[in-house]
Amino acid sequence: MSNVIDIININNVDKNTMNIALLGATGSIGTQTLDVVRTCLPEARVKVLTGFGNVAALAAMIVEFKPEIVWVPDGVAADRLIGILKPQLQPGDLCFKSSIGFDVSAGGCNAQSIKKEPSTFEILTGDDGLIACATYDCVDVVVNALVGKAGLAPTLAAINAGKNIALANKESLVTAGELIMSLAREKGVRVVPIDSEHSAILQCLQDSWSSSIEKIILTASGGPFRTWPRERIENATASDALRHPNWAMGPKITIDSATLMNKGLELIEAIWLFDQPLSNIEILVHPQSIIHSMVQFIDGAVIAQLGPPDMRMPILYALAGPGRVANSYPRHDFLSGGGLSFEPPDTDRFPCLALARHAIEVGGTLPAVMNAVNEWAVGQFLQDKIKFYGISALIAEAFGSYTVQDARRLSDIQDAEAWANEFILRTKLLR
Amino acid sequence: MSNVIDIININNVDKNTMNIALLGATGSIGTQTLDVVRTCLPEARVKVLTGFGNVAALAAMIVEFKPEIVWVPDGVAADRLIGILKPQLQPGDLCFKSSIGFDVSAGGCNAQSIKKEPSTFEILTGDDGLIACATYDCVDVVVNALVGKAGLAPTLAAINAGKNIALANKESLVTAGELIMSLAREKGVRVVPIDSEHSAILQCLQDSWSSSIEKIILTASGGPFRTWPRERIENATASDALRHPNWAMGPKITIDSATLMNKGLELIEAIWLFDQPLSNIEILVHPQSIIHSMVQFIDGAVIAQLGPPDMRMPILYALAGPGRVANSYPRHDFLSGGGLSFEPPDTDRFPCLALARHAIEVGGTLPAVMNAVNEWAVGQFLQDKIKFYGISALIAEAFGSYTVQDARRLSDIQDAEAWANEFILRTKLLR
Repeated sequence: MSNVIDIININNVDKNTMNIALLGATGSIGTQTLDVVRTCLPEARVKVLTGFGNVAALAAMIVEFKPEIVWVPDGVAADRLIGILKPQLQPGDLCFKSSIGFDVSAGGCNAQSIKKEPSTFEILTGDDGLIACATYDCVDVVVNALVGKAGLAPTLAAINAGKNIALANKESLVTAGELIMSLAREKGVRVVPIDSEHSAILQCLQDSWSSSIEKIILTASGGPFRTWPRERIENATASDALRHPNWAMGPKITIDSATLMNKGLELIEAIWLFDQPLSNIEILVHPQSIIHSMVQFIDGAVIAQLGPPDMRMPILYALAGPGRVANSYPRHDFLSGGGLSFEPPDTDRFPCLALARHAIEVGGTLPAVMNAVNEWAVGQFLQDKIKFYGISALIAEAFGSYTVQDARRLSDIQDAEAWANEFILRTKLLR
Repeated sequence: MSNVIDIININNVDKNTMNIALLGATGSIGTQTLDVVRTCLPEARVKVLTGFGNVAALAAMIVEFKPEIVWVPDGVAADRLIGILKPQLQPGDLCFKSSIGFDVSAGGCNAQSIKKEPSTFEILTGDDGLIACATYDCVDVVVNALVGKAGLAPTLAAINAGKNIALANKESLVTAGELIMSLAREKGVRVVPIDSEHSAILQCLQDSWSSSIEKIILTASGGPFRTWPRERIENATASDALRHPNWAMGPKITIDSATLMNKGLELIEAIWLFDQPLSNIEILVHPQSIIHSMVQFIDGAVIAQLGPPDMRMPILYALAGPGRVANSYPRHDFLSGGGLSFEPPDTDRFPCLALARHAIEVGGTLPAVMNAVNEWAVGQFLQDKIKFYGISALIAEAFGSYTVQDARRLSDIQDAEAWANEFILRTKLLR
C-alpha cells in the first residue's frame, strides 16, 4: 500500500480547529494559502507565519491572522517588520516580544512595555528560528511553501516533531524523498502534496491500493516554449520564460516550467509520494492545464482530476481533504474552454526533463546535486547571466564530474549540496 | 449519503467465489459479461443463463459455463435448445432435466435418462421462470442485461430476494427508480450500474459523500447524427442510425443513442442511482466517448473516468469493484487518440432528450409511459415503419393525452404501461 494512502487516512486533524504553521507566507503559495484559510477554513488558526524579503506583506498578514510566531531571516528584517507594525497597532490589539531568535540589541523593540495578552507574538530569526517554527507545539499542519532546497530541513524537523506536512516545497522530496517518506511512516504523519499534479493524483487514487495502479500520468503544460523551435528557445530571455501560459507562480518554478525541469522534479516527487517505480510514471504534455494529472488502474480505467489552474484548490485539499470544502473559486467551463489536447514531451528541446529522469534512475544523491545546480542556474538565468540552455548544460556538466553517493542520512544530502556549491564556485571562477 | 455509496460499501461478496445469474446472456452486454468472467474472474461461477432468440449461442454458453439454471422464453425455444445441445454432449459431461417452467410434453426431453451429477441443469421458461432465475438461491449477483421494460420485474424480484444487482437494464430505473432504490435500501443490497457513464460516476465518487457533489457531468457521444442538420436527420434510416461512431451495442440502445433518448434515460437513471436532483446533472456532448462521465465536487475539483469505449470495463467494475482487477483489455492512448472536445446537447435536433427531462421533472408514472412508447416507437423505426422524428412525435403525443399518476407500487408502473399499450394500439388503428 502506498505511503501517502496510509498517511492521508490518518486524518486525525479536525479542519475546523486546525492550527497551521505557514512557512513561506509571502510567496505565491503562501498568499494563496492565507486566501484559502480566509475564504474556506474560517475556524483554522494560522499560528506561525514566515516571510523572507517582503516584510511589508508579512506585516499585513500579521495584523490579519494574529500568529503566535513570526519568522524573518535576520535582525535587520525583524527591525523593519517592527517598524512597519508599530504605527498600525491599536493599544492591546497586537503585541510582540523579543525571543532567543531575535537580536534585541539590533531591534530596539521593548517587548515588556507593549506586551498584552492574549495577542502576543514572537519574532524568530535564523536557521534555528525556522526549525522552531516548523516544530511549534500547538501546530497540527505545517504548510511548507518555502522555495528551493532551504525547505528540506524544516520538512524533516516538522515530521520528526509529528506534524502533518502540506508540501509545496517539491525540492524536499526531490533531494531526500526516501528519508522524508520513511520518517513520515515512522512518525505516522501525513505528507500531502500541494502541487496541483500530485494533489490530482491523490484525488484520483482516493482509497485505492498502490498495487492497483498501472501508471500515473503526470500532465505538463509544456510551458511558454512548448511550440518554440530550439533555435528560438536558445535565445529566450528570462522575461520570455516568465510568461507561463496557464499558471501564475513564483519566478523559480516558472523558469523550471519553461525548462520542463519542474516536471522532472514532479516526476521524482511522484515516485516518493506514491511509492511507484519510475517506469510507472508517464509524462504527458497537456497544454490547457485542465487535467491536472491522471491515474490508470490495472483494469484499464483512467481516473483524472480536472479544474481551472487555481492553486487554492490543491491547497484546500491538502489542508482539509479528503473531504470536500465548498468554495466559490472559479469552475472549469467545458463549453467555453475549448478542447483538451495531448502531446509527448520533447526532451530534445527540453533536456532538463531527461536529466531529471537520469538523476532518479541513478538515485542516491544525484537528484540533490541536480536540484542544487538547477536552483543556482535558474537564478543565473533570471539575472540574464546565462542563456536558457546554460541551465541544462550546467547540470549535465555537474553530472559528469560528480561521484554519486547513497542518500541515507541528511548529512549525505548536505554533502552532495556542498559538492554542488563547490562545483558552482569553480564554474563562477572559470568565467 | 447517496444510496449507491451506502450500497457499494456493503461489498460482502467475494469476487473469487461469486455466483452470478446472467439475465440476457446472448445480447451485447451478456456476451461481454461472459467474456469478463472468462478473462478476469475465473473463480466466479455463472449459475444462471437466460437467452431470448439466439438459442444456438445460448447452447454454446451452456457448454462453456455449465450453469445450473437456463431460461428460454417458451417450450419451443427449450426444444430447440435441447436439440442443439444433445449431439454435443459427452456422456456425463452435461445433463439437463425438465422443470416446472418447461413443458415436457412439448419438448421430448427425458431428463431422468440422461441426468448425471454434478452437472445437472434445469430449463425454465415463461415469466415465472425468469423470476425464478433472478431469485435463485445460491446467486450473489444478478447481472440484469435484459432489454427494455421486461427487465423491471426480475430486478425487483432479485432485490427482494436480497441479491446484489449489476444493472445494465436502464429501463428498470427509468420506470421505477424510486421503488427500486427504496427496496434496495430496505434489503441492504447493492445496485451497481453497468452503463459506462454511471460506472464512471461511481468510480469518480468512490467513497465521497453525496453532499459533496456539486454536479454530475454525464457525457454523451452525440450519436451518429451529431453533425447532421435537422433536414437530413428527418430522412435518416434505421441503418444510418445503427452506425454508432464509438460503441458497438444492441439495436434498441443504438437507436436510443441516435435520438439522444439514451442520454435522457441515463439522466433519469443517474438521478435515482446517485440520489441527486435533476438540476445537479449536466449533459455534455463529448464526441470521442473517452471521458465516460465526471463529477464536479463542491470544492470545484472535477474527477473524471476515462478509457476506451469497451463495456467489459464497467461490467468488470460492477462485478468486482471497487477493487481493480487486472486485465489486458485495450488501453486508451492519449497520444494517438487525438484531443477531447465538448459541445452542448442540441434538444432542437434531438427532442427526445428534452422529453426525458420533462418526464422526470413531472415524475410519477410519466417516465414509464415515455419508456414504453419509446420502446415501441424504436421498434417501428427499426422496421422502417416510422421516420426518425416519429419517435419523439409519438412520445410527445402520448404525453399530451396521459394523466400522470403517482409511482408508488409496481402496479402503478404496470397501469402506466397498460395505458401506453392502449395508446400504441389506438395509434396503430389510426394508421
